[in-house]
Amino acid sequence: MIRQKIMVINGPNLNLLGAREPEVYGSETLDMIENKLSSKASDLGLDIDFRQSNFEGDIITWAAEANLNMAAIIINAAALTHTSIAIFDALSAVNIPVVEVHLSNVFKREKFRHHSYISPASMGVICGFGGQGYIMALEALSEILKKNKK
Amino acid sequence: MIRQKIMVINGPNLNLLGAREPEVYGSETLDMIENKLSSKASDLGLDIDFRQSNFEGDIITWAAEANLNMAAIIINAAALTHTSIAIFDALSAVNIPVVEVHLSNVFKREKFRHHSYISPASMGVICGFGGQGYIMALEALSEILKKNKK
Amino acid sequence: MIRQKIMVINGPNLNLLGAREPEVYGSETLDMIENKLSSKASDLGLDIDFRQSNFEGDIITWAAEANLNMAAIIINAAALTHTSIAIFDALSAVNIPVVEVHLSNVFKREKFRHHSYISPASMGVICGFGGQGYIMALEALSEILKKNKK
Amino acid sequence: MIRQKIMVINGPNLNLLGAREPEVYGSETLDMIENKLSSKASDLGLDIDFRQSNFEGDIITWAAEANLNMAAIIINAAALTHTSIAIFDALSAVNIPVVEVHLSNVFKREKFRHHSYISPASMGVICGFGGQGYIMALEALSEILKKNKK
Amino acid sequence: MIRQKIMVINGPNLNLLGAREPEVYGSETLDMIENKLSSKASDLGLDIDFRQSNFEGDIITWAAEANLNMAAIIINAAALTHTSIAIFDALSAVNIPVVEVHLSNVFKREKFRHHSYISPASMGVICGFGGQGYIMALEALSEILKKNKK
Amino acid sequence: MIRQKIMVINGPNLNLLGAREPEVYGSETLDMIENKLSSKASDLGLDIDFRQSNFEGDIITWAAEANLNMAAIIINAAALTHTSIAIFDALSAVNIPVVEVHLSNVFKREKFRHHSYISPASMGVICGFGGQGYIMALEALSEILKKNKK
Amino acid sequence: MIRQKIMVINGPNLNLLGAREPEVYGSETLDMIENKLSSKASDLGLDIDFRQSNFEGDIITWAAEANLNMAAIIINAAALTHTSIAIFDALSAVNIPVVEVHLSNVFKREKFRHHSYISPASMGVICGFGGQGYIMALEALSEILKKNKK
Amino acid sequence: MIRQKIMVINGPNLNLLGAREPEVYGSETLDMIENKLSSKASDLGLDIDFRQSNFEGDIITWAAEANLNMAAIIINAAALTHTSIAIFDALSAVNIPVVEVHLSNVFKREKFRHHSYISPASMGVICGFGGQGYIMALEALSEILKKNKK
Amino acid sequence: MIRQKIMVINGPNLNLLGAREPEVYGSETLDMIENKLSSKASDLGLDIDFRQSNFEGDIITWAAEANLNMAAIIINAAALTHTSIAIFDALSAVNIPVVEVHLSNVFKREKFRHHSYISPASMGVICGFGGQGYIMALEALSEILKKNKK
Amino acid sequence: MIRQKIMVINGPNLNLLGAREPEVYGSETLDMIENKLSSKASDLGLDIDFRQSNFEGDIITWAAEANLNMAAIIINAAALTHTSIAIFDALSAVNIPVVEVHLSNVFKREKFRHHSYISPASMGVICGFGGQGYIMALEALSEILKKNKK
Amino acid sequence: MIRQKIMVINGPNLNLLGAREPEVYGSETLDMIENKLSSKASDLGLDIDFRQSNFEGDIITWAAEANLNMAAIIINAAALTHTSIAIFDALSAVNIPVVEVHLSNVFKREKFRHHSYISPASMGVICGFGGQGYIMALEALSEILKKNKK
Amino acid sequence: MIRQKIMVINGPNLNLLGAREPEVYGSETLDMIENKLSSKASDLGLDIDFRQSNFEGDIITWAAEANLNMAAIIINAAALTHTSIAIFDALSAVNIPVVEVHLSNVFKREKFRHHSYISPASMGVICGFGGQGYIMALEALSEILKKNKK
Repeated sequence: MIRQKIMVINGPNLNLLGAREPEVYGSETLDMIENKLSSKASDLGLDIDFRQSNFEGDIITWAAEANLNMAAIIINAAALTHTSIAIFDALSAVNIPVVEVHLSNVFKREKFRHHSYISPASMGVICGFGGQGYIMALEALSEILKKNKK
Repeated sequence: MIRQKIMVINGPNLNLLGAREPEVYGSETLDMIENKLSSKASDLGLDIDFRQSNFEGDIITWAAEANLNMAAIIINAAALTHTSIAIFDALSAVNIPVVEVHLSNVFKREKFRHHSYISPASMGVICGFGGQGYIMALEALSEILKKNKK
Repeated sequence: MIRQKIMVINGPNLNLLGAREPEVYGSETLDMIENKLSSKASDLGLDIDFRQSNFEGDIITWAAEANLNMAAIIINAAALTHTSIAIFDALSAVNIPVVEVHLSNVFKREKFRHHSYISPASMGVICGFGGQGYIMALEALSEILKKNKK
Repeated sequence: MIRQKIMVINGPNLNLLGAREPEVYGSETLDMIENKLSSKASDLGLDIDFRQSNFEGDIITWAAEANLNMAAIIINAAALTHTSIAIFDALSAVNIPVVEVHLSNVFKREKFRHHSYISPASMGVICGFGGQGYIMALEALSEILKKNKK
Repeated sequence: MIRQKIMVINGPNLNLLGAREPEVYGSETLDMIENKLSSKASDLGLDIDFRQSNFEGDIITWAAEANLNMAAIIINAAALTHTSIAIFDALSAVNIPVVEVHLSNVFKREKFRHHSYISPASMGVICGFGGQGYIMALEALSEILKKNKK
Repeated sequence: MIRQKIMVINGPNLNLLGAREPEVYGSETLDMIENKLSSKASDLGLDIDFRQSNFEGDIITWAAEANLNMAAIIINAAALTHTSIAIFDALSAVNIPVVEVHLSNVFKREKFRHHSYISPASMGVICGFGGQGYIMALEALSEILKKNKK
Repeated sequence: MIRQKIMVINGPNLNLLGAREPEVYGSETLDMIENKLSSKASDLGLDIDFRQSNFEGDIITWAAEANLNMAAIIINAAALTHTSIAIFDALSAVNIPVVEVHLSNVFKREKFRHHSYISPASMGVICGFGGQGYIMALEALSEILKKNKK
Repeated sequence: MIRQKIMVINGPNLNLLGAREPEVYGSETLDMIENKLSSKASDLGLDIDFRQSNFEGDIITWAAEANLNMAAIIINAAALTHTSIAIFDALSAVNIPVVEVHLSNVFKREKFRHHSYISPASMGVICGFGGQGYIMALEALSEILKKNKK
Repeated sequence: MIRQKIMVINGPNLNLLGAREPEVYGSETLDMIENKLSSKASDLGLDIDFRQSNFEGDIITWAAEANLNMAAIIINAAALTHTSIAIFDALSAVNIPVVEVHLSNVFKREKFRHHSYISPASMGVICGFGGQGYIMALEALSEILKKNKK
Repeated sequence: MIRQKIMVINGPNLNLLGAREPEVYGSETLDMIENKLSSKASDLGLDIDFRQSNFEGDIITWAAEANLNMAAIIINAAALTHTSIAIFDALSAVNIPVVEVHLSNVFKREKFRHHSYISPASMGVICGFGGQGYIMALEALSEILKKNKK
Repeated sequence: MIRQKIMVINGPNLNLLGAREPEVYGSETLDMIENKLSSKASDLGLDIDFRQSNFEGDIITWAAEANLNMAAIIINAAALTHTSIAIFDALSAVNIPVVEVHLSNVFKREKFRHHSYISPASMGVICGFGGQGYIMALEALSEILKKNKK
Repeated sequence: MIRQKIMVINGPNLNLLGAREPEVYGSETLDMIENKLSSKASDLGLDIDFRQSNFEGDIITWAAEANLNMAAIIINAAALTHTSIAIFDALSAVNIPVVEVHLSNVFKREKFRHHSYISPASMGVICGFGGQGYIMALEALSEILKKNKK
């Protein structure tokens, strides 16, 4: 049952969820999201490894680590989505499926949030569904991992 | 139990799915997607009204119709996504949740597919998961409709 | 008294007037505008032929029709104003005066509403006066038709 | 019957009307426009205060003056339309309706005339109707002032 | 001798040919072009199916139809050339040769006519030769179909 | 003790301070700012020469005048900040320190207020502190004039 | 029978045809194209003067020469198409018809090949038909020269 | 011998010549230029009317005045060259020759000095020759006025 | 007397102050600035917490920390000013006043230093006054904190 | 009396002067300009070396040659003005004065003629005076050479 | 023999070399490059200090460190090349030679890799030679250090 | 031992090296570079064929010639680097390795020197090392040719 863990990477400021600008990001905290996601993962027979960092370097390092011993990546790179070619390179180098998630609908917000360096390195993108977006990503990955196993 | 039907609007060329450029859009036909979606809707206690047109005018008209007697809209406006302000206006005028879906990950494709007039009028966006994206949209809407009802 | 009818062309979503985003477009319906305009036309000794369509193709076809048997065109192409070169071509091909009308002051709104393909094919532009703009257009055309007759 | 005077502000070079490039601006002089407008104002029970200056500073000063003791502003800022943020600021600071008028259809002319700093500070815009545009603006304001009084 | 029919698709306003702006488009009508083309097709042992529509949706539908039972497409999408990604998608989905034709030399005209969404989905482009361009397209296709048959 | 007077130049519409858009510019009037500034200047052993004009030409002329008999310039060119190369030239020609002040944080406002022709001709920029910004500029100049004297 | 010779001008690198990047330009050599074209010219009662140079200066000089003693120009300026205003000027100065030809469909290639300085100085453009494009140009010119002679 | 006077218009900051940034503008004062120019005019049998203003409004007014009773205009609009559409309009309205002069070679300086609104309204442009440029303009106008008189 | 500490955040390379490019940044070291600022803070009855990091992640983390137990932030994000949306997000999430400081006048330097992601998340901006800018920021904050306390 | 010869360099197509587009370039031939210029040079005690080429390489070579044994360069690089960085480099490498001349007022023509690579490498620019521009350049150079000799 | 060590700085993801996208970056690992480089350094009488980090902050810190006790820097900043102004500032602050190296020819890749913030702070740039590029940089620095020592 | 000669192509103005702008290009002449390079080539068992031309056409012709009988190309296209698509095409057509060299670090210079049409057709790029860059290119090619031979 190797490679059934999914790394969930959260970028800068996401540790503030619930406290920060709730009219944009909702009142759910990152812990609440992790709990719901763990529970859903368990339903799907998967494990999650849930992380957050304010450092681009950590995210790059984690992506390489995930490639060695995880089955997939869910990533919400937050503001780094729009500026980090280095994360794009890190994700381009992995051989496992990557799903990009955003809590808010970035296309309703500032122009500089409309471009993502992450998207072309991802299988798919989900945005605007709040914490639910992580669940959707997990379910989608569960389907894909099942198909790939066959 | 009024307003529990969801309109699923498909834009130009989507009738060709399965036949057209399968390396981009996959081999699933639109009928197959409709069938899976109907089945999932039925599981969730919802109805779907699945439509396709090559005419922008139809999509505009349908959006207004949906607003009168449906609970939500799932829309894959295909190429019109990138050019139709009129559909943006039509969706901005509705008071029900709208979810935007794309089969392919549009951000991996030509530059002119990276901008969507639909996104700012939608609650959320799902792209890159093939036919599965419709299922994900339906499930997300099911959650949202449940919350709204309370 | 040939050629004294004026075609009034309304583009996509204008059928929703009054219901759609009243803070932008006001609470007047398209019917109410048509009625006021008919009444004013009758005062001025003119007829109006008032139409609405969500289809670009209809508007193109109507412009050509107007050119054959009407005295002038009043056009509110709505969202197509900003995207339709085909309507620009249709209006460029007519030999009768064209007046462009917009309910809202488009220059106070999104950037993409600041450019009009219709304007260079029109005699003049009136925007921001709500339904009153149609009356203003009709009065202006009445003056012009009188001058041209001489 | 206070606040029933309307200031009509004319920008640089408009004193040359009739003489300057008649193929663009027509053969009507600014005096002729003022006379027609006075006569129409008198029909509508309004006064006009008709001014012209080649100085941006005058126009800014007049806008502030109008705000104190006039009911509305009609402004044709001519070339300053396209370059003066200071007039935009002046008009944004007034609490009375502003209507922007242009003699020619600016959208048929050089690209740099397509952008107006005046428009977002105005209630509405009228262009392409020659001197008649001022009359149309006055009539529109007359309607609006009547509504506001109620 | 299956697949020897060639669909000739004409976009918006082309029905006005001869009447509309003859200094740009010449005095030949669309009927005259169809007649000449029929006659030439007959010389070359080919059939043509000549169509015109003001609706983008028709053109999309016709392209898919041509792909099923025709040997090639000649398309003059008129103004839609410059705005319709949906027609680009429709033509990208066909497996038969496509030739793009324009009556006028679009590169001598407005800037917005210099970009074509049709060209990258076409085998070749012919513009500036008036009605003769259709004949040239037909002759070129005749050569290509002969080669492909071998 | 020559050259210890500081010219304070205020651009168009600043005479309206307190009355104009108080949510943007605060409720303090220009007179109040002048009074506070005079008092602070007196504390610092400096004089101020406080001026306002709606005319670019005045500001240019004043800058040259200041260069002849003042010790420094504090300038809030208001809207002319963003459009006047002539004021940039005037300030580039002076040999005394220039400090640019803005009441509001211009970078939170319209895009066209983000560029300043004044800044590259100034020693430093202070914005967003309301009337307090003038005091800060004066104190900074006081420090600089002391250093320069040594 | 003066002026019945047609100059065929080929720009830089076209001497390498057949050898260079055959997947883009085909395997036909420039000699083969010249031979086919000569043969077709002879059928049409015309002569051709077929030239190639890697030097912009030659092409400019030849255009002026053609204007003196030829009936028309067929030009494939190759890469100079996109960079040479001097050739544009040379072609603008001739009084004989000019047809622009490209072997490949330039609109399927790099962005910098989408703009042609040659096109606005040409009667028409033919691209994407390989060596056949020259034949098409010759036939088109034959038609035009016949019409002009009448 | 009417209309043999030439108006020489100098824009903002030019009164500072000689004092201001001599490494850019040279050490010659505006008075010295006027004197040299008067002397040269006298040699050529012409009068000059030499003016300077820091106000755009003056320059606009003077252009109209020149049109009534002068033979030509020499204009160095200084920084207004790059920003004033109103001066462009004023100069477009005159029927006498206009020559644009700049002391420095504006094309060696900041990017924003490379565009001139004055140039398209002028017969010709002379820049980079310091005060000598005015003499050159006068001599050129002398030639032109002689030709026009014939 | 809680919340009277002010965090002073310094971005990458600022530890090199005094050594690095003194013609741009002056000869004052960061330690000297800290000392002066401490002394001034003490005068004003405030504490400062002075920090420097070359890591974007630290700055993000510190901003969140400041929000919990400090009264205000003074930030000189150095080069990250122009590239870090993540710091913009971090500062947008705090509920305490933020003042942006730059040692040099960034508007006199390279174009890429003219845009700041920090400014729209700050109350005000001070640049070009060297180390003195920090003192100015502290004094301004002292005033603001006093007002807020009332 | 070494270095008193002036090289006059004329770029592509200028050999066609008089014949080519006389409405743009006038009816004067290049020979006529050379003759007038020779005569004027002789008046001024100077020689000219008048050249024309359609080859950029010649102009580059000539510039280097002029630098060795001429006193100045007058250059009308025609269309190469707008495209040749190599000529810019060649002129930047010379130590003698360079004057740029254009027959037509390039700023009244196509946008792509508004930028000159030659101007920043020239002392000054003269355009719009037809053949007279060369005379003006020569006279200006005569003045400059006299000054430099002193 | 102080200052004869050269710091070799490698940016994010370069630790993955050999494993990551070998068709772009080759199969050589970073260790292999370090070994070859050490060996070459030893031949040249130099030491190297070879480092890699995924953190921008480390690279900034290392550059300052190198400036204190190394003779030169070789830097391959990987993706940070294109986004980090902070590294540009760090390198601008050093007084030792800097050589920029890239394994792949970045100009053959995505548009966003064509701009480097590192290059203007470097002495020279070497790209496209794989691991060999480091050797070339070392040899070049060896030559330069020898010259500087003299 | 066929194909062991390397063509070294130098573009316009490089014949002036040593004389031209030594602060940019150094004091080494092209002859000195050729001599050093010959000597190094001889060490490496290679021949060089060293050429320079001011004509784009020569460089294009030489590239094709090199492809027939040389082992590699070193090219410094000088200013043509930034403007010549024709040289890009010529280099794209060769089957031997191409190395691009620039004496100066082009990225420290004018913006228009930052884009190279040569780079995407080259194996690698070396810039900023003066004449030494040619040696580096030769050594790199020597390595590559050795590898290819195996």
